[in-house]
Amino acid sequence: MGIATKPEHSTPILDRIKSPEALRQMSDADLVRLADELRRDTIAKVAATGGHLGSTLGVVELTVAIHAVFDTPRDKLIWDVGHQAYAHKILTGRREAMATLRQDGGLSGFTKRAESEYDPFGAAHSSTSISAGLGFATARSFGFGDGDAIAVIGDGAMSAGMAYEAMNNAGTMGKRLFVILNDNEMSISPSVGAFSKHLSALCTQAPAIGMDVMMRKAASMLPEPFKTGAARARQAVGALAGTSSLFEHMGFSYIGPVDGHDLPQLLAILRTVRNVADGPVLIHAITRKGAGYAPAENSADKYHGVGSFDAETGALSKSKPSAPAYTKVFAKALCDEADRDPGVVAITAAMASGTGLDVFSQAHPERMFDVGIAEQHAVTFAAGLAAAGMKPFCAIYSTFLQRAYDQIVHDVAIQGLPVRFAIDRAGLVGADGPTHAGAFDVAYLSNLPGFTVMAAADEAELVHMVATATAHDSGPIAFRYPRGEGTGVALPERGTPIPIGKGRVIREGRDIAFLSFGTRLGECEKAADILAARGLSATVADARFAKPLDIELIERLASSHDALITVEEGAGGGFGARVLEHLAAAGRLDGSFAIRTLTLPDHFEAHASPSVMYERSGLAAPHLADAAIASLEGNQIEIGHPKSRLFAIT
Amino acid sequence: MGIATKPEHSTPILDRIKSPEALRQMSDADLVRLADELRRDTIAKVAATGGHLGSTLGVVELTVAIHAVFDTPRDKLIWDVGHQAYAHKILTGRREAMATLRQDGGLSGFTKRAESEYDPFGAAHSSTSISAGLGFATARSFGFGDGDAIAVIGDGAMSAGMAYEAMNNAGTMGKRLFVILNDNEMSISPSVGAFSKHLSALCTQAPAIGMDVMMRKAASMLPEPFKTGAARARQAVGALAGTSSLFEHMGFSYIGPVDGHDLPQLLAILRTVRNVADGPVLIHAITRKGAGYAPAENSADKYHGVGSFDAETGALSKSKPSAPAYTKVFAKALCDEADRDPGVVAITAAMASGTGLDVFSQAHPERMFDVGIAEQHAVTFAAGLAAAGMKPFCAIYSTFLQRAYDQIVHDVAIQGLPVRFAIDRAGLVGADGPTHAGAFDVAYLSNLPGFTVMAAADEAELVHMVATATAHDSGPIAFRYPRGEGTGVALPERGTPIPIGKGRVIREGRDIAFLSFGTRLGECEKAADILAARGLSATVADARFAKPLDIELIERLASSHDALITVEEGAGGGFGARVLEHLAAAGRLDGSFAIRTLTLPDHFEAHASPSVMYERSGLAAPHLADAAIASLEGNQIEIGHPKSRLFAIT
Repeated sequence: MGIATKPEHSTPILDRIKSPEALRQMSDADLVRLADELRRDTIAKVAATGGHLGSTLGVVELTVAIHAVFDTPRDKLIWDVGHQAYAHKILTGRREAMATLRQDGGLSGFTKRAESEYDPFGAAHSSTSISAGLGFATARSFGFGDGDAIAVIGDGAMSAGMAYEAMNNAGTMGKRLFVILNDNEMSISPSVGAFSKHLSALCTQAPAIGMDVMMRKAASMLPEPFKTGAARARQAVGALAGTSSLFEHMGFSYIGPVDGHDLPQLLAILRTVRNVADGPVLIHAITRKGAGYAPAENSADKYHGVGSFDAETGALSKSKPSAPAYTKVFAKALCDEADRDPGVVAITAAMASGTGLDVFSQAHPERMFDVGIAEQHAVTFAAGLAAAGMKPFCAIYSTFLQRAYDQIVHDVAIQGLPVRFAIDRAGLVGADGPTHAGAFDVAYLSNLPGFTVMAAADEAELVHMVATATAHDSGPIAFRYPRGEGTGVALPERGTPIPIGKGRVIREGRDIAFLSFGTRLGECEKAADILAARGLSATVADARFAKPLDIELIERLASSHDALITVEEGAGGGFGARVLEHLAAAGRLDGSFAIRTLTLPDHFEAHASPSVMYERSGLAAPHLADAAIASLEGNQIEIGHPKSRLFAIT
Repeated sequence: MGIATKPEHSTPILDRIKSPEALRQMSDADLVRLADELRRDTIAKVAATGGHLGSTLGVVELTVAIHAVFDTPRDKLIWDVGHQAYAHKILTGRREAMATLRQDGGLSGFTKRAESEYDPFGAAHSSTSISAGLGFATARSFGFGDGDAIAVIGDGAMSAGMAYEAMNNAGTMGKRLFVILNDNEMSISPSVGAFSKHLSALCTQAPAIGMDVMMRKAASMLPEPFKTGAARARQAVGALAGTSSLFEHMGFSYIGPVDGHDLPQLLAILRTVRNVADGPVLIHAITRKGAGYAPAENSADKYHGVGSFDAETGALSKSKPSAPAYTKVFAKALCDEADRDPGVVAITAAMASGTGLDVFSQAHPERMFDVGIAEQHAVTFAAGLAAAGMKPFCAIYSTFLQRAYDQIVHDVAIQGLPVRFAIDRAGLVGADGPTHAGAFDVAYLSNLPGFTVMAAADEAELVHMVATATAHDSGPIAFRYPRGEGTGVALPERGTPIPIGKGRVIREGRDIAFLSFGTRLGECEKAADILAARGLSATVADARFAKPLDIELIERLASSHDALITVEEGAGGGFGARVLEHLAAAGRLDGSFAIRTLTLPDHFEAHASPSVMYERSGLAAPHLADAAIASLEGNQIEIGHPKSRLFAIT
């Protein structure tokens, strides 16, 4: 057409990438350009949606290098946690869809099998990638798949027991397996523990790129920086070569430390190990969280998880909260209790800021223990503290507490030790989706003999429950509360212990009784309003306890209403199930009242805003009212499937 | 009285020991004699009762040395697992009570807080001792207790992730803490994994007793063998001193290897470290399981867990089983499936013989994976295998599967991967007591979306369920079965897949319907007989599935009987709860039939024979019949409290 085309080099390479296969044809120089574009594109995309930016920025070069060297998706690339995989998503056919990241109907904030064949194993909780990678590597021996397995795991995640178990197993199985340790010296908070110190020690040996027998054999194939480092490493390690790092003790060939932002070096090393490895190899890459984006690099948490922001300046678009967050209310209440009681100590598993314990540690630095990503140890450590007479508060998200289930049963419940569990992120959590939902804690705690299980209906209740847990020294006790802001109620000056096993009635009615466990209480009140408009009178009660049950309250509600509706932000087998079991044993399911137990549905609800997720789960006010009507009419309800909208329609 | 007393040296020293304090006044020579007597006494005691003999024999000298050097119970001695603590029990006031070991009303087979102040932290599952010890050591800093904490942990237990998490945390906290690694190169089966190899490598350096700065400062206080070893260690380790072992990487001072049967050396070393340690210390002791008792030393499993035996000859008193054990039936059935299906592989977490997978590995050695004490890794490794298209069977005891709960939720259920869980030791297990009861698996699995959960009513059903699991490729599936012998039913030539979610009716009646989930089915039949004698006709059905429920069967039983009684060998929140939740949602709890859900009681039932434990739990036939009658009469029942014996009395 005679119109001058733009010079080749100004066309973004990224625009031409339809799949990672394209990377394998590119020059190293072009790959370097691509990495720059990919970084800028990631920043632009996340600026619009929010998300885990810092982690991805730390692995942009690693992402390009792995896809350029390995034959994905035939080779299985497994990102540990998966929140650092945004650049990976952009390269693997999901660039446009990044506009929907973490939003209703959009891309997951983590890797997800259902989303792409380039995500062979989904993640979100840490430290699973080596185990999964070993599974793929082992299956290959039996003819199931023929590619390599590459696990990319952070230094924080590597410090968890599960990663150690996997390394221990992989190290003796001897299968070809690549583990890339993405060492940025922080998980969400800076990493803690002896393992972290060990990594630092390895880094001070830089550029001691380690060598073992396999690698020495391949020395002639090495690129220059690697060759030089290798020679120096041999000198440094001397007679003890092969036993210098923890990884070599575990049976891995150790390569590193490598500058994780030096793409040509990464490419050279990955090409080499891909050619010569015949067993498990650990490549230790040093990266910087937030790398290449000054606002992130200069931020304390490196933009670990952010809302939307101005890509140019990095200014975060913050909305002003209308009420204090539950997490902050918990932290403040615990500080107050600790001020008064020298036995109160707090434990977090690498989530100091997420659980609010960073606030606690400012007030009582010596009484807060961050044990690293180590929930199993956290709980039994707390049990030891309790056995010695202290009052340990284990503050762990519901979803992560699942990691310590056996320790809760075995070390806490069976011994009846008064460990206090502060269970944050109870119920649906929004953008982090089903992997982070706190769905199961009520069910898995409330059938443990001797446990006390509470849920706060609002932030004032939370303050009282912290006081209740502090005072309760006769056995284990847990209290759960959701992510996000409270309801805005006035907070008490000081918490007052709640009588164990006593609920409270919020509103007295005649026909229908809502018995809520947790923060659906407000929805129950709204449902009562909806019913009032239909001429039905509803009682609304706050159960407070899933264990022990407030038998008196439950039986009174049952005998004085036509229907009893329990409501909770958890899966089946929890509060409602315990109410049913009690009423069955008591011979009270005699038809004198109808009963429905509303729980989360029997499927994993995809990410959206929490309110949308609860809407879809049939736990918003109109569905509660629907269920009440259905129960009066003797009709079936489908838990978690709000198919009818009686009051929205009429 | 003029009668010559026996010479002093022929009076057993052990007879004079009322508490470990006495050991602190004794000469080393007398302590050696005491250890010999203690070994003989342990053998004599366990010969009568059965129990975990081999483990205790391996730590007799360690037991004497620790109590002689440390100030128990002020100093907190924590035995990992606790099954090696019989000699400890004998020394700490429980010598006479050893006759009741593992028997109804008698001593626990593990350490137990309620049993003695010398058991500061109970155990039974592995790898908890360092976490608990660190709890005590930390509490001491706050004035809660003033003693030392000593954890004794086996090499198998040390290979678990939880122990690594604890070492990682203890290594940086830097508190004075003693960890004694009891290295006998086997847990129940020989230890596996890279960690085990590392220990072997350390042993080949013997007698390289390691030294760090703290120990060098104290060199002048060292006894001779230690001093010599120390000098040699320094030479060997050379410039890299302090980074030679995995333990030193983890921040511990490493002392070892030490001959765990050389009591004078043990005493000298413990006295020295007790005097000088100012941080975490690991003492690596080499022991032999079964040491000092030829029959145990010569046995493959070193008398890990035995019934009663002849102390003189070691001949085990074996009772002939009347039916094959469930474990064996499972192993045989899995072998058969593997013969036909090349995708079938099996995974155990250090329980090859306990789960029957030793049999499987004889048939298919390359298709059995013993990953060590590493349940978390085991499950996610299996998920990786399933993601690659294989058919992994994770064979793990119910109680130990608790260790992998998060991996089940997160890596298996959320991804819908077809991992097969073979859950042995479901329900009450007898002598091992509450720590080993398989009480919670039905509850914690049957509320996971997409899971299929089965229980075998007899060994023929188990064969069919193995076939069902093999055929079921659309999602996770679990089947549970109890410890011990089957019912003696004829076994099918080959398993036939059971339609998913379909139960079966065993006996048709009119008045009462028993719906059993698991091996209480036989008791339900007996209960039906008891009721028949009272003129009541009972239907007996086998639910087979806790998920998905056989809705059709449940609704039919509900609508055609006056009472529906569910029965299961598990805690509340399980099968019965799911039945109730369904009937509530369906509007069927309308008083047209009575319902009772019989589960394990809401307390941890102490060890006894399984039949006695079930009797006490209200799950024997007379109680089932009682519950049926009570339900017809509208009376309350107390779950797990068989207070009335209607049919025993009338």
